[in-house]
Amino acid sequence: MKYCSINYKIQPEDKATISINERGFLFGDGVFETCRIVNKKIYDYSPHLERLKCGLKAIKIDFATSKIQKNVRDLIKINNFKNGIVRIYISRGSGSFGYSPKKDIKPLIVIQLKDLAICSQEPVNLWLSDITKISNKSLPVNFKIAQGLNSTLAKIDAQENNCFDSLLLNNFGEICETSSANIFWVKGGVLYTPHEKCGILLGTTRKRIINSSPIETREVQANLNDIFDAEEIFLSNVSIGVLSIKKILPKGISFKSTYYQELFQNLLST
Amino acid sequence: MKYCSINYKIQPEDKATISINERGFLFGDGVFETCRIVNKKIYDYSPHLERLKCGLKAIKIDFATSKIQKNVRDLIKINNFKNGIVRIYISRGSGSFGYSPKKDIKPLIVIQLKDLAICSQEPVNLWLSDITKISNKSLPVNFKIAQGLNSTLAKIDAQENNCFDSLLLNNFGEICETSSANIFWVKGGVLYTPHEKCGILLGTTRKRIINSSPIETREVQANLNDIFDAEEIFLSNVSIGVLSIKKILPKGISFKSTYYQELFQNLLST
Repeated sequence: MKYCSINYKIQPEDKATISINERGFLFGDGVFETCRIVNKKIYDYSPHLERLKCGLKAIKIDFATSKIQKNVRDLIKINNFKNGIVRIYISRGSGSFGYSPKKDIKPLIVIQLKDLAICSQEPVNLWLSDITKISNKSLPVNFKIAQGLNSTLAKIDAQENNCFDSLLLNNFGEICETSSANIFWVKGGVLYTPHEKCGILLGTTRKRIINSSPIETREVQANLNDIFDAEEIFLSNVSIGVLSIKKILPKGISFKSTYYQELFQNLLST
Repeated sequence: MKYCSINYKIQPEDKATISINERGFLFGDGVFETCRIVNKKIYDYSPHLERLKCGLKAIKIDFATSKIQKNVRDLIKINNFKNGIVRIYISRGSGSFGYSPKKDIKPLIVIQLKDLAICSQEPVNLWLSDITKISNKSLPVNFKIAQGLNSTLAKIDAQENNCFDSLLLNNFGEICETSSANIFWVKGGVLYTPHEKCGILLGTTRKRIINSSPIETREVQANLNDIFDAEEIFLSNVSIGVLSIKKILPKGISFKSTYYQELFQNLLST
């Protein structure tokens, strides 16, 4: 039996339920984190917690995160969970007048353990989607807000076109990220990745790559033409680590190198 | 006791729960309608149903809506519900690999009755928010998708500034709507409202106003300067009907007329 936690109460997941009036359900009104569990330990907990705090502030949920870490540890223990993902989700709570939250609303904390998707290290194809990333002027997209329909539609779009994921541009045509990963490319010995102001998720794996990069690394505002002649393009997130791109479709642009995938995969695991 | 319906099963609302793995909860992955109930009857059911069908198609949920109307009628009857709102919500279902829905996923249908917010016919103040409306290139915002955080933050922004609601522009600076209502203005004897392509919700009350308007009516792409010298500005949705604007803050632009509010309020109730 698998256990999850709701408001710090550990319980069997198949029987775990929430109210239909929970704003996470009504409106996707919440923020979450997905962290790696490696050998029963939470990997990079501090940067995840920091991002969670910033996300809560950005969407104006008043919540102290102090009790989460112990709860995750207890959950790992009771599930005897060795490797995978923990999803920590803070939903605004139950009680609304239309879109207005009730004054005394109390957040709901749901913590779940998830198996890692089986993902080979074989380079994958990206679909250049017509769907644009939601602007950071509309929502605080730098954090993992529970507004997942844009990513869901982008992912479905990729699958319908037999691709691993979709590449999303912002409303200015700048490279952002995929539905669920940050993007990097190497050109002329320099590592590039979209700047925060492009409206990207501030990925913890992205941060690790930038901090550990042995070559010059630049955060930039770039468009498609800037990446089409890259030597290598790769994705990053906590689930896949680092994964190189083979082709960008429907344009058919091909990339052959997996040198930096291997380099950063090794750097991340040390 | 109040009753709601989950997958057509009518049950007490205070005990009604859903799985924590429901995608509506995880990601706001669903679409809903809010219809007026007047004298125990669903008002404008056909246009609401039509919009729901288009919304389901836009977010790629395969679901036949045929059984909803009878279920709503049964719910009205068992609750002896005379006047208010019915919220019909189709969530994509339970089962995900990250953002990808499972192949055999089955939608969840939640139907709830809500009391009308008490709202006087006194004109209200609007707050000109820095938050922009989500682009229709990022999400099918013409429909009531359960991605309510943009509206929630705009509503909180309004409340923090002692206003009834926020006025939202799109990324091009065009007038869109408020967090929960369409907007109209009258200038030189012509009624104006933002065009569908501005990325507005295709409101059923908006449609009724356009269809019943006794004066020339134009759907336009307009910016703030176009409305600042209007004779009257009013909002519309199924809950408030029609409601005039007194001031747009922080600019302090004032509007005195409530002529069209009364005119259209009367036209809607006949």
